[in-house]
Amino acid sequence: MIDEVLNRYRQPVIDIMRALLSLPLDHGQLMREHMGFEDARSDKARTVRSPASQDFVGNAVDAPGGKMLRPALCLLACEAVGGDVGRALPAAAAIELLHNFTLIHDDIEDASDTRHGRETLWQRHGVPLAINAGDGMFVRAQLTMLGLDHSGVPADRALEAARVLNDAAVLLCEGQHADITFESRDRVSLTEYETMIAGKTAALLGASAQIGAIAGGADDATARALGEFARMLGMAFQIQDDVLGVWGESARTGKPVADDIRSKKKSFPVVWAFDHARGETASRLDHLYAAEMTEAAVEEVLSILNELGARLAGSDAADLWREDALGMLDGLPLVPNRQHELEALASFVVERTS
Amino acid sequence: MIDEVLNRYRQPVIDIMRALLSLPLDHGQLMREHMGFEDARSDKARTVRSPASQDFVGNAVDAPGGKMLRPALCLLACEAVGGDVGRALPAAAAIELLHNFTLIHDDIEDASDTRHGRETLWQRHGVPLAINAGDGMFVRAQLTMLGLDHSGVPADRALEAARVLNDAAVLLCEGQHADITFESRDRVSLTEYETMIAGKTAALLGASAQIGAIAGGADDATARALGEFARMLGMAFQIQDDVLGVWGESARTGKPVADDIRSKKKSFPVVWAFDHARGETASRLDHLYAAEMTEAAVEEVLSILNELGARLAGSDAADLWREDALGMLDGLPLVPNRQHELEALASFVVERTS
Repeated sequence: MIDEVLNRYRQPVIDIMRALLSLPLDHGQLMREHMGFEDARSDKARTVRSPASQDFVGNAVDAPGGKMLRPALCLLACEAVGGDVGRALPAAAAIELLHNFTLIHDDIEDASDTRHGRETLWQRHGVPLAINAGDGMFVRAQLTMLGLDHSGVPADRALEAARVLNDAAVLLCEGQHADITFESRDRVSLTEYETMIAGKTAALLGASAQIGAIAGGADDATARALGEFARMLGMAFQIQDDVLGVWGESARTGKPVADDIRSKKKSFPVVWAFDHARGETASRLDHLYAAEMTEAAVEEVLSILNELGARLAGSDAADLWREDALGMLDGLPLVPNRQHELEALASFVVERTS
Repeated sequence: MIDEVLNRYRQPVIDIMRALLSLPLDHGQLMREHMGFEDARSDKARTVRSPASQDFVGNAVDAPGGKMLRPALCLLACEAVGGDVGRALPAAAAIELLHNFTLIHDDIEDASDTRHGRETLWQRHGVPLAINAGDGMFVRAQLTMLGLDHSGVPADRALEAARVLNDAAVLLCEGQHADITFESRDRVSLTEYETMIAGKTAALLGASAQIGAIAGGADDATARALGEFARMLGMAFQIQDDVLGVWGESARTGKPVADDIRSKKKSFPVVWAFDHARGETASRLDHLYAAEMTEAAVEEVLSILNELGARLAGSDAADLWREDALGMLDGLPLVPNRQHELEALASFVVERTS
């Protein structure tokens, strides 16, 4: 069922994003490359200019990655409040562009080489042009949201939607700041972890549903409740993501097993284990994280996490957030079919294996 | 006269920006450091936390740099159309924050060590946190502009102002992309140069005046004409900036003499010289720019530029843009006193020596 829901909204959003990024300049080419709309040209090809223009021309490809969970939440929320999905489509595209702006900058900040099986933008074009392409995509997202009134949303609602998007972006940046500084810290508390993912992940998922509801014409209380639902779902999503980052099957996640342990990431299972380890186990963990993370060390951390029950703790935490999220839907005036799909999305988030 | 105009608007805008950036987190501290609102703590101080909070606390200082030309243009345009300056103040602050977001990212992209006599943000805190602080400042700028209706601007005008700001940001990013790629190119035409500065400099100056007029209640045609005035003024401003980058007195500009030649920047005098040099002079220029730019080479380039008359060409070009700009004010329904000040600002832009 959930594939049907995600697929229903996927193509229309991709079509809008393609149109939004069809800028004639190289700057736009970088954005299309990141999105998987055009292929990455080799360094050699990049020095060849098309005869008709000064611009580099990539070949059209169709390799957009990601689940597109945010646009789906936005459009589902719009329909759940009885709104016309056409009104929220530009908002959904704006949200996905904003998400991708953060990915372009995150990849630089984390020095990540690949994403969705492709070289990251900064790897191909250098840090300066990649920072700038991210900025450009952020501006595109803003303009798209600010144009909501062209699809029939009243001006005050369009303004409100743009505010909700940027309120989430404030939290995103704060969460990213925390995530970056966590790398150089020995210990992170569960509370600090939760604040970080509330900003880095949950805020934009929450905004997605809230904006969809605003565009769909919902009253303020309903829009806020749907936003809260999706925010809590975002907490569940990130914790499950962190569980998969340690125990996910490599073939499904596309990452090596225990990759987050290898990179000493302060993800849920590790933060939880540091919080719950006692005596000798606690000393071992401290010791392992203070030294280089060899493959033998990865194995030992993994067995400590298993011993402590960190995997179950993660699943339980994600499940609690999902239950809290579902509670937010109680009593809301929603279209029944769409409410069921929102609930199915909630189950998908905690039960997924990739 | 012009100092009086700039000073009249300076402090109120600084006060608003201070309030906007008084966030309780480290992320906000980085933004305040960039603005010169708080001092940069040493690495050692940064590891000491205040007893009352988890956050690092900098000492309040008052060292904001820059001419604040953009907020002045915005507020002057607002008053010139008979608007209440209070309505445009948040817009002026938003514009200055957006400008500073571009400076934070430009400093990373250009690998600049200092700005306004202070170490740049990336130098002190590393590239990842500095990229993120720039993003955060961009979001602050957006939210401030989107809150214009709180200072009495109607919702549809607030939406329009936010659109004008982001339209300028699109051009800014395109101009920055061009500027970055110019570095690795041997030749840049005068047309390419003009397109680049139209994006990188003129677009935001134009938007500043247009937004001020929108907030001040001007009709669409007047707001556009004031925007066009400031955009042309921006062209004059950048060309004069480029002239000062070669011939400016070090004590006034704060940069070494001929600094832009030393860094092989594709600024107006150099682009113009490449365009106008013939025969042996042209070969010499090609040769000098193909090799390492030693101090002897800087001297030789300087004497070629002087021989060709590149300095006068720059002043003439800036002056032509100023005249075109002033032409845009003809027949507009403006408050006479404020119109005179806009004209004085135009003279200042081309006559300034720093």
